[in-house]
Amino acid sequence: MHAITIPEPGGPEALVWDEVPDPVPGEGEVLVEVAASAVNRADILQRQGFYNPPPGASPYPGLECSGTIAALGPGVSGWAVGDQVCALLAGGGYAEKVAVPAGQLLPVPEGVGLTRAAALPEVVCTVWSNVFMVAHLRPEETLLVHGGSSGIGTMAIQLAKALGARVAVTAGTKEKLDQCAGLGADVLINYREQDFVAEIKQATGGAGADVILDNMGAKYLDRNVQALAVNGRLAIIGMQGGAKGELNIGALLNKRAAISATSLRARPLGEKAAIVAAVREHVWPLLATGQIRPVVDRELPMAEAAEAHRLVEASGHVGKVLLVAP
Amino acid sequence: MHAITIPEPGGPEALVWDEVPDPVPGEGEVLVEVAASAVNRADILQRQGFYNPPPGASPYPGLECSGTIAALGPGVSGWAVGDQVCALLAGGGYAEKVAVPAGQLLPVPEGVGLTRAAALPEVVCTVWSNVFMVAHLRPEETLLVHGGSSGIGTMAIQLAKALGARVAVTAGTKEKLDQCAGLGADVLINYREQDFVAEIKQATGGAGADVILDNMGAKYLDRNVQALAVNGRLAIIGMQGGAKGELNIGALLNKRAAISATSLRARPLGEKAAIVAAVREHVWPLLATGQIRPVVDRELPMAEAAEAHRLVEASGHVGKVLLVAP
Repeated sequence: MHAITIPEPGGPEALVWDEVPDPVPGEGEVLVEVAASAVNRADILQRQGFYNPPPGASPYPGLECSGTIAALGPGVSGWAVGDQVCALLAGGGYAEKVAVPAGQLLPVPEGVGLTRAAALPEVVCTVWSNVFMVAHLRPEETLLVHGGSSGIGTMAIQLAKALGARVAVTAGTKEKLDQCAGLGADVLINYREQDFVAEIKQATGGAGADVILDNMGAKYLDRNVQALAVNGRLAIIGMQGGAKGELNIGALLNKRAAISATSLRARPLGEKAAIVAAVREHVWPLLATGQIRPVVDRELPMAEAAEAHRLVEASGHVGKVLLVAP
Repeated sequence: MHAITIPEPGGPEALVWDEVPDPVPGEGEVLVEVAASAVNRADILQRQGFYNPPPGASPYPGLECSGTIAALGPGVSGWAVGDQVCALLAGGGYAEKVAVPAGQLLPVPEGVGLTRAAALPEVVCTVWSNVFMVAHLRPEETLLVHGGSSGIGTMAIQLAKALGARVAVTAGTKEKLDQCAGLGADVLINYREQDFVAEIKQATGGAGADVILDNMGAKYLDRNVQALAVNGRLAIIGMQGGAKGELNIGALLNKRAAISATSLRARPLGEKAAIVAAVREHVWPLLATGQIRPVVDRELPMAEAAEAHRLVEASGHVGKVLLVAP
């Protein structure tokens, strides 16, 4: 088969579409013939040499895909050759085939095409596990989403609204904020022109956000704590603004607040399977009814992954950038 | 009645036993004739002028007491004049009488004397709410308790052991560590001579602590994150080592770990009542059977509160220092 390989870490040109051996599904895995994958920030870090795949994972980038089951490894039940699926991956989505633990498979949701289903697994699992399973966002509470127009952001807005919460977002342009509003965001904050702490306080009668979904890490740490409400929960899923920052424990304690930081990729299989099962139960019905939908900026041929990475690094996109297999 | 007043914030001598007006129980409150109160670190901060009572609370120090119900305010059911109780207070325990919201009352547990019951409410509610309700310590997990010989520490050791967890403690002397061992602590770390990160890793096969109960704040923040296991939870309940410290978000994220910071005193009545109800359900039976017990260093007359503060500030005690009303 062909896959995107990284012979030498570096810029987008480091991504090389090359012939490689087919993966072989092991115990409890299925082989998926890939229809599409999608670009995640972690893929860019991996390309740059800053994020090695966890032990046992495919060396190729790609944390999610859609496709058709081509073969079952030993000990797999509940799935059949020919099933259309999408999957959460520890790597290897930028390829024509990928071996996937069966616990990380989801059926292609009703009403979503096979290609676009590749936009779902990583964002849905990330949002569900952080905002709902860890931070326990409840109806009537306020969620602040940083990077509201990102793949994660567009899904967080829709899921939180579908479940009865109020949503505030930050983004860097009016166009992106308009897109967030179109998905249901109630409070729009242009982080280039406005202070998100002041804006979220104003929008909540001084209370602050009950849950914050953050991709900036250190750069926003102090302001995120300021922006939290009493009993607030800050869920950090990225460190685009650095990894070490000063924490005001006094402010956190006065608010009886909490900070969590997670990633999906390194979780053991059992935890991933539990998240995927929860997503299938709670989120898949919302896709089937059209209450939420994948937001796709554009689709590019997988061999043009370098161009897709350039697009995502330039941050001009809204939602996901897909890579379509040949 | 008499109460300990603080005419001017300052050293222990700022505590003055003086005649003051009797409190009047309001709607949903009872009047308790105090048998004993206990010294908490927060009382010392209040005496120094660094911790004002929350709005509506008594101006006198004292976050817990035991005693006998002397009168019922309007709208109180389930309690009667003459009942022997102990109570979580927002202040006012260093007095002959105190008005208490009924949701913060607990019966004096079977097998515990009236005076010693004053050692229970603050430590039991703090440990239960943080270690079990927030950090969800589970059987077989490892709890690291900083300040294992403190009032909080001695209760955390006993409760965690009673519920099937493994307990590591830090303390500053061999004598204090021996007392912790007598209460069931499995791993004893002298923080003056040993590196608690290295010790907890060694004691857990490299894994680290699943839950850490911390009273040091900034001074231990970075090492606490290092000492956490994957999926670990750091529960901060004090800032004896400062309020602002550098947080390594990258390390937190790699471990999918979480940090919470709470205090009891400022919580709204409903949250306090929920904690007290949980404590009555889960902890009171363990006191009745003698599986856990209040640990009391000594009892002093309430008018000698200054001496009690000196003792607690010198940190030579193990467990609680009680103040017995005349």
